[in-house]
Amino acid sequence: METETRTMKIDIHTHILPERWPNLRERYGYGGWIHLDHHRPGFARMMQDERFFREIEANCWSPERRIEECDRLGIDMQVLCTVPVMFGYWAPAADALDLARLLNDHIADVCQRYPRRFLGLASVPLQDPALAAEELRRAVVDLGMVGVQIGSHINTWNLDEDALDPFYAAAQEVDAAILVHPWDMMGKERMPRHWLPWLVGMPAETSLAMCSVLMGGVLERFPRLRFCFAHGGGSFPGTLARIEHGFHVRPDLCQTRTKKPPSAYLDRIFIDSIVHDLKTLDFVLDRMGEDQMLLGSDYPFPLGELEPGTMIEAASLKEQTKDKLRWRNASRWLGRPLQQV
Amino acid sequence: METETRTMKIDIHTHILPERWPNLRERYGYGGWIHLDHHRPGFARMMQDERFFREIEANCWSPERRIEECDRLGIDMQVLCTVPVMFGYWAPAADALDLARLLNDHIADVCQRYPRRFLGLASVPLQDPALAAEELRRAVVDLGMVGVQIGSHINTWNLDEDALDPFYAAAQEVDAAILVHPWDMMGKERMPRHWLPWLVGMPAETSLAMCSVLMGGVLERFPRLRFCFAHGGGSFPGTLARIEHGFHVRPDLCQTRTKKPPSAYLDRIFIDSIVHDLKTLDFVLDRMGEDQMLLGSDYPFPLGELEPGTMIEAASLKEQTKDKLRWRNASRWLGRPLQQV
Repeated sequence: METETRTMKIDIHTHILPERWPNLRERYGYGGWIHLDHHRPGFARMMQDERFFREIEANCWSPERRIEECDRLGIDMQVLCTVPVMFGYWAPAADALDLARLLNDHIADVCQRYPRRFLGLASVPLQDPALAAEELRRAVVDLGMVGVQIGSHINTWNLDEDALDPFYAAAQEVDAAILVHPWDMMGKERMPRHWLPWLVGMPAETSLAMCSVLMGGVLERFPRLRFCFAHGGGSFPGTLARIEHGFHVRPDLCQTRTKKPPSAYLDRIFIDSIVHDLKTLDFVLDRMGEDQMLLGSDYPFPLGELEPGTMIEAASLKEQTKDKLRWRNASRWLGRPLQQV
Repeated sequence: METETRTMKIDIHTHILPERWPNLRERYGYGGWIHLDHHRPGFARMMQDERFFREIEANCWSPERRIEECDRLGIDMQVLCTVPVMFGYWAPAADALDLARLLNDHIADVCQRYPRRFLGLASVPLQDPALAAEELRRAVVDLGMVGVQIGSHINTWNLDEDALDPFYAAAQEVDAAILVHPWDMMGKERMPRHWLPWLVGMPAETSLAMCSVLMGGVLERFPRLRFCFAHGGGSFPGTLARIEHGFHVRPDLCQTRTKKPPSAYLDRIFIDSIVHDLKTLDFVLDRMGEDQMLLGSDYPFPLGELEPGTMIEAASLKEQTKDKLRWRNASRWLGRPLQQV
């Protein structure tokens, strides 16, 4: 039921897993994969072989539970994607493809069951860009997914690696939104304490990804790609002035793929709103532009915004700007009109 | 000649090298050390064995040339320290100590020749904290240096490693200011293009160092230490809200050494002013406090502020605040009254 005046909220950064999946160690013949240990009702441990990774609750796998929470939190739609530890970029591409298909079929099924509440982002085996392109086409064209989530890097490749061009070409061809999520954090082996891979490494990963896309000329080669960088662009907005200065003082190092500085592309990329306080929100919004920020929360994980969109509502912004952040910018990133539910 | 009304400017972040030093490969019997190739008058290449590291000019070694430039730029005093690639933390401690003594003797000599223009920060072989403590005492007590420059980490140690306590005890005992400089950047092997170890890795290194000091309880164990973190605190100010959020939602991971959040210590640490534009200056100053920022430039290197202090002068700040940034905060960090020259 549409009305002209009603607003809506779409949370573009949420994670979901199937409740159960096949034993991947048996399926592929080696370890390193995640499995769930449903140790009591409504709670499961994500385990990487025998190593505990993270405790999750039913809202990580149950669409019905998510819808209840969304209703309570005032969220109309969630964009769903997997948890980055499932990317499998490290594995043989055929196995990563097999897992991606399993995850994509699951998310597509959830979206088809609740089309007014969920949109899906695919996973793809980016270590083999041709295979990734093929699975992305299947996910978007056959399964109706709206885009793809990718990591901040793929093994030794950054996001401007030429090898990725077939994937980018496919993403542009099928008009897929791209969510870039930090993972496999740089320096994590040097950060045994204080959760620093998440608090220091992840923001740096996102800045690495943004700098690679912008300085690597990816948007010149593929001008219709629509990237959104998670967690408020990580450390990029706060250090953009340094990056920009470096770009100008060392053209020999920084201007090898494009002469346009990163700042020239800010109206071409998106970030989510997970910045954790109002001062940072004001700064990041001013830096990146009010047309580029999308409500995102990292639901259902604790390092996100626990009550999605709260910061946007609390900000001293015009209602028109808030509506951009709540859903209008998301509609542009997704490349589709969003039905108001 | 002192007056009551005259202001002054002290640049607390500048690098200097001796014009020449012994062949370290011969002296220690193995490579990996830096030497200068004075390939034409006024210019030298910093070489790591056969690998070109950076071109420098005479203002990197000549105090007289520096004084001329300072006079032109309106800088009254520079705080001098070595270039981080000289730290030598990777080497046997006895060799790193030998090099530190050589560098400290050089900087102390420059300061003694021009006591109204230069103050010196020591280098110490931090891979051996007892030796580092000893050399710091010599540098401060015998040579008259005002503090010490250390790296953002020491090999596999972060700055909250208990092993460093003897060094911190000595720094507190001799009342040494500590400048923490990013170096040996995390993830550098993954960043072959676009100068990203400097544009992404360095800000992350500084945040790593700040989080380690603050969450690691270093300021609780050594309450009189005065740390200054270079390059505007790197990515820390822009991601402090995330760090703070993480501290509160995962006390099991983040609150193991202190229950005080990082924000509780902001009035106990310093940062320099190298933030590269006015919006970032406003944000960082608001975040960290106007009593905590010190004029710094990274002179004579291009990723710093090429005309030291320009951003402070251009900012919309009260004259009283600017004076804090120009020199009054530096006086507190250095723990000494600064003579107005």
